[in-house]
Amino acid sequence: MTDTSPFTVVAKEGPDQPPVTPELEDLYRGFEKALLVPLWTEIGGLMPHQPASKATPHLWEWTTLVELAGKAGELVPVGRGGERRAIALANPSLGGRPYATPTLWAAIQYLMPGEDAPEHRHTQNAFRFVVEGEGVWTVVERDPVPMRRGDFLPQAGMHWHAHHNAASTPMAWIDGLDIPFQYEVESQFFDFGRDTISEAEHATPDRSRAERLWGHPGIAPVSQLGSLPGSPLLAYRWVDTDAALVDQLDLEREGFPGVVEPGHALVRFTNPTNGGDVLPTIRTQFHRVTPGTQTAPRRETGSSVYQVFDGSGRVTVGDHAWSVTRGDLFVVPSWQPFSVVSQASASDSDSGALDLFQFSDAPILERLNLFKSTVEDHS
Amino acid sequence: MTDTSPFTVVAKEGPDQPPVTPELEDLYRGFEKALLVPLWTEIGGLMPHQPASKATPHLWEWTTLVELAGKAGELVPVGRGGERRAIALANPSLGGRPYATPTLWAAIQYLMPGEDAPEHRHTQNAFRFVVEGEGVWTVVERDPVPMRRGDFLPQAGMHWHAHHNAASTPMAWIDGLDIPFQYEVESQFFDFGRDTISEAEHATPDRSRAERLWGHPGIAPVSQLGSLPGSPLLAYRWVDTDAALVDQLDLEREGFPGVVEPGHALVRFTNPTNGGDVLPTIRTQFHRVTPGTQTAPRRETGSSVYQVFDGSGRVTVGDHAWSVTRGDLFVVPSWQPFSVVSQASASDSDSGALDLFQFSDAPILERLNLFKSTVEDHS
Amino acid sequence: MTDTSPFTVVAKEGPDQPPVTPELEDLYRGFEKALLVPLWTEIGGLMPHQPASKATPHLWEWTTLVELAGKAGELVPVGRGGERRAIALANPSLGGRPYATPTLWAAIQYLMPGEDAPEHRHTQNAFRFVVEGEGVWTVVERDPVPMRRGDFLPQAGMHWHAHHNAASTPMAWIDGLDIPFQYEVESQFFDFGRDTISEAEHATPDRSRAERLWGHPGIAPVSQLGSLPGSPLLAYRWVDTDAALVDQLDLEREGFPGVVEPGHALVRFTNPTNGGDVLPTIRTQFHRVTPGTQTAPRRETGSSVYQVFDGSGRVTVGDHAWSVTRGDLFVVPSWQPFSVVSQASASDSDSGALDLFQFSDAPILERLNLFKSTVEDHS
Amino acid sequence: MTDTSPFTVVAKEGPDQPPVTPELEDLYRGFEKALLVPLWTEIGGLMPHQPASKATPHLWEWTTLVELAGKAGELVPVGRGGERRAIALANPSLGGRPYATPTLWAAIQYLMPGEDAPEHRHTQNAFRFVVEGEGVWTVVERDPVPMRRGDFLPQAGMHWHAHHNAASTPMAWIDGLDIPFQYEVESQFFDFGRDTISEAEHATPDRSRAERLWGHPGIAPVSQLGSLPGSPLLAYRWVDTDAALVDQLDLEREGFPGVVEPGHALVRFTNPTNGGDVLPTIRTQFHRVTPGTQTAPRRETGSSVYQVFDGSGRVTVGDHAWSVTRGDLFVVPSWQPFSVVSQASASDSDSGALDLFQFSDAPILERLNLFKSTVEDHS
Repeated sequence: MTDTSPFTVVAKEGPDQPPVTPELEDLYRGFEKALLVPLWTEIGGLMPHQPASKATPHLWEWTTLVELAGKAGELVPVGRGGERRAIALANPSLGGRPYATPTLWAAIQYLMPGEDAPEHRHTQNAFRFVVEGEGVWTVVERDPVPMRRGDFLPQAGMHWHAHHNAASTPMAWIDGLDIPFQYEVESQFFDFGRDTISEAEHATPDRSRAERLWGHPGIAPVSQLGSLPGSPLLAYRWVDTDAALVDQLDLEREGFPGVVEPGHALVRFTNPTNGGDVLPTIRTQFHRVTPGTQTAPRRETGSSVYQVFDGSGRVTVGDHAWSVTRGDLFVVPSWQPFSVVSQASASDSDSGALDLFQFSDAPILERLNLFKSTVEDHS
Repeated sequence: MTDTSPFTVVAKEGPDQPPVTPELEDLYRGFEKALLVPLWTEIGGLMPHQPASKATPHLWEWTTLVELAGKAGELVPVGRGGERRAIALANPSLGGRPYATPTLWAAIQYLMPGEDAPEHRHTQNAFRFVVEGEGVWTVVERDPVPMRRGDFLPQAGMHWHAHHNAASTPMAWIDGLDIPFQYEVESQFFDFGRDTISEAEHATPDRSRAERLWGHPGIAPVSQLGSLPGSPLLAYRWVDTDAALVDQLDLEREGFPGVVEPGHALVRFTNPTNGGDVLPTIRTQFHRVTPGTQTAPRRETGSSVYQVFDGSGRVTVGDHAWSVTRGDLFVVPSWQPFSVVSQASASDSDSGALDLFQFSDAPILERLNLFKSTVEDHS
Repeated sequence: MTDTSPFTVVAKEGPDQPPVTPELEDLYRGFEKALLVPLWTEIGGLMPHQPASKATPHLWEWTTLVELAGKAGELVPVGRGGERRAIALANPSLGGRPYATPTLWAAIQYLMPGEDAPEHRHTQNAFRFVVEGEGVWTVVERDPVPMRRGDFLPQAGMHWHAHHNAASTPMAWIDGLDIPFQYEVESQFFDFGRDTISEAEHATPDRSRAERLWGHPGIAPVSQLGSLPGSPLLAYRWVDTDAALVDQLDLEREGFPGVVEPGHALVRFTNPTNGGDVLPTIRTQFHRVTPGTQTAPRRETGSSVYQVFDGSGRVTVGDHAWSVTRGDLFVVPSWQPFSVVSQASASDSDSGALDLFQFSDAPILERLNLFKSTVEDHS
Repeated sequence: MTDTSPFTVVAKEGPDQPPVTPELEDLYRGFEKALLVPLWTEIGGLMPHQPASKATPHLWEWTTLVELAGKAGELVPVGRGGERRAIALANPSLGGRPYATPTLWAAIQYLMPGEDAPEHRHTQNAFRFVVEGEGVWTVVERDPVPMRRGDFLPQAGMHWHAHHNAASTPMAWIDGLDIPFQYEVESQFFDFGRDTISEAEHATPDRSRAERLWGHPGIAPVSQLGSLPGSPLLAYRWVDTDAALVDQLDLEREGFPGVVEPGHALVRFTNPTNGGDVLPTIRTQFHRVTPGTQTAPRRETGSSVYQVFDGSGRVTVGDHAWSVTRGDLFVVPSWQPFSVVSQASASDSDSGALDLFQFSDAPILERLNLFKSTVEDHS
């Protein structure tokens, strides 16, 4: 390597490679000087026959996350600059970057009683999902939105937002964002808002204004119409999600369509202005797998993060497998086969079903004509 | 006029017309023989400076409709061939055609206790709206859907459907269809289904299967995804519509956006698969006007039919005005200014608000780039 | 019938009708007074099992049209008020209305040497097609567009336009508009422009500015981007249309895809901003049928008008059939089977092919989910 | 750092960081063990206030590229496994990865007389652009497409393709692909095709079949209709591109709209089936800047690669500036201001204009609601 080149072009050996001669080495030195890299030495890694995921399947246990977040609650203040007491899942094969997958960020966020997280906005699309607790309000465009177990709260890019904990106990939840994706394509803007939120925004209404406008099934406010890139509905409540899942499984028992496969109910959170995904870059879904059911292995281009909302079972991703229980988070990298078995229960009711919240980068791939999926026969 | 021509070309007089000479008359006789009509004698009617509605504003009183429908219940059986005991509003200036407006059909339908209306399907898009009563189920694609006061029930083209009255009293409701429009563009297909519906379809479930799949706000069943021309949600329930209207007026009182103008809440029924209108050719909306409120005169291309759901007030359409009360139906022709005054009540609550159900042909005009509206200052 | 009713409800007899009793007659008199019409007496006509076209298949011979238009050129001045020397095809079964079909207007327009047609604009979508001659420029939004044999010139709603004949001979062409459709849905606006067009607009450039911006295949001007309801390309030239047809037939001979059926090339004029139809309500296509070829009978919902551009042959529409030659116009009503035989020529070249220009209301039906077509086996 | 953690969480100092105490260090060790990374130490890099491009503006000189490619032509065979004699631009700040920008691959490809590059297909979207020479045909889905100076040849994902050089001299051109983007989102599939292409595909027709079907302005083959993700038009010829640019500058001189700014014509290659970008992930445009013109500095989210097609001038990107001439390639990273000055010529004609071919990842950002651009005042 010469002084002027920041990298080395390494000759390879093989039937599909040119003979490694002094002339070839000279050529490769010329490539280095000119900042060039040949395709023929790199093509296997760059253009694989099928997706070769950079991320590794991995499980993070909720108890560990909550314990560490609790310690951070004592040691790390929340304020302008650091912005949020959020601790991100760092996939073990992504070089210590705080990325759950090559495109997705997943973090536990933690707020102590009485704390506020300051207002800001950013192009990164975000959501919150609550696996336990209540007492925090996220204030989006000055609209206070309560957060409680089971609720899903999307927040599309460039909406001002802050959080405040009105309860007497700490609260933890997960944040999902497209930080790694936007880091890669370099589309990020970020603005600070007000350092302190107003008395009015410390209000703790039971429903957000967004829900009062958009939370009625199939019914839209005429004054607010028009297709929006992100959902104007700022909270999808557990009571609704649960009811939708119960309905699918009841329909299955009655012999009607609804579930995606036997014993497996699946709903998608959608944008009521266009019926599409709730965020331009992130798909969010909720699965319920009845006790004893094993799902068919499924592969998809793009990656997902799952959190166990309830129940327990065993998850297989590629050649990894884990027993999982409430709050546990795990990663399904691109094109790795994924299936779960829900733990059989003593009774024959759905109680004890394995409930999984999922988020993925599927909208990115779908909108660019790159999404592909396949389900394997598992008989 | 010659023997061979089915029509006459009439010479007109005026500064923009050619002089009426024998040569011109010869020319016009030539036009008749050749089946031709000049633009210059017809342009004013064909291409007016603004829409000149063929329909007349008109009011049909609900008490009259119900009384006549009740008599028809005694005299006219329901069965194959006649298909439905439906009696259509015939606009007085549309030549006795059973058309409420040039594009829209509106009828009262009436079913006696225990009666069935036989199954059929057609390309005409349809809906039902219930101003009073309950006890009838409409069975759409073998899915029984209960109908009760305040419910809106869309049914897109080519869905099999029948009705049965499971109650011990007659029931009336209104049907809206695009029969005149499809008659004009000649897109109609119609098939008979089973003459009698099965025992299973005489079921009287509290909720349809469609609602169990699609009736959860912003939550879609993954097994059924995909943009559909008509809404898969077969019932929009009064409890939801009422809540959405209450929420808009509450938001107004709190100083937040929601209503379309002061004292005037407005919601649209939408297709959850794409956020658009519930039917490809028909828009349906629900208005609530608080007591004492007068709405701004509004003009739109295309026509509407309204039914008073509750309250009373005074309606002005062009140079017609009527006092209206529950169940009354009236027509707003294209580009005629429309406004209402809701009757003031003794109390200052919303109780006593004027509630109006509206349907229109706006999707036809919007999809063809022909929709236009304007609101007049009424200060 | 009472004095106050504008129409009569006539009792019908039949197995699917109620018995005609004095009580039923009373009921029907009540309907009349209340401006109501029952469905059960009308359903067969309103909701047929398949489209029953109101229009009749009919042929207008070009020689007759040109002769009458020429006489009109002598007797009828062109000016403000009458606006255009246009003479419309009046379908024999549409009551003398100047409608070729229930939705489409087709007319021959005629301009004498040196004449101008004054500027106006209207919501009606329009186009011109030139079967013979040259020398007229249509001036659209002050952009002069030359018109010559074989050229197709669309002009979407609300564009200002005028015409001037710069030649020393009269010129005739056909106009197609959606006048009947917009009359039905009452979406029409119409404005007068300048009574005389300026010197600058009497210019006679060889290409319009529109073509210079948009007439390069697949290449768009970045300063003008954005999906437009009507095509910004104001002329589709014969040299391009002919080349596209020649290419399809050559590809067929070489064994490659291209034609729609053996010996039948077909192209559609499209809007380069979105790839859709050139006008929101009108589809325009060009057919070439090689000598001796017979096309398969095809039915479509909605109606078409055809003009023979070149060649000769025999056309069958439903139970009508005509021999046709250059300039002849004919109508294909909704759902009537349509086929042509191109007259065999002595040589085996395509010269002598039957060339047909077609316009239809297909975009109206497609955008409203009402389009349907079928091709019959004609072996 | 413990044995088990693949990375280190480093405590930072600063007013927005927690005090670095032994307890904090313990917490961070806990994060490492649990594969967690805090947001508050990383937020500045991850979520910058505006895009901080990872790529560096850089210029590659064409003479160097061609010389090295020529040597590779002697030393490196083309065949199955290596697939292509393509040499990629490696941005100096992207770690030696063969990426011009974080999302885009740009390479010079070189084919010796008589050589074939074997058939394959892949999800990566690709194009070729020819700055000099001719004699190579790219065979896409068995359709041979000639390549000559000025031609742009898109090829959407999963189309089979091979190349053959039918000339007696070598030929070089550039390839653009979304390899880095698809590597990041892991959507790649790749299949080998036939090792040798057939006699029939060694054909050297003057036009591809794709052009015969789709290369007529605004005219679509009805047998092939339907919106496609990538353009079915496989070649955009220089004669058309040049004519479009000439037309824009002529219109400017005549006082009409067309150019994007004074002296700067700009066209976009589009997909005729929907009017959008020619490839789902890559935008391609062609600029002509008249002699002496300086363009306004422009910033965009996402990155571009430019190649000088003709003329010479000076390019400024952020704090880099270079003199450029025919064939030179340079990179404009995200949100870096970009402007050019075209070298003034002795005459006042456009001959000597600076012609620039550009490709960018703008469709990725636009479809995900992340595209933003701004033009600076440079007066």
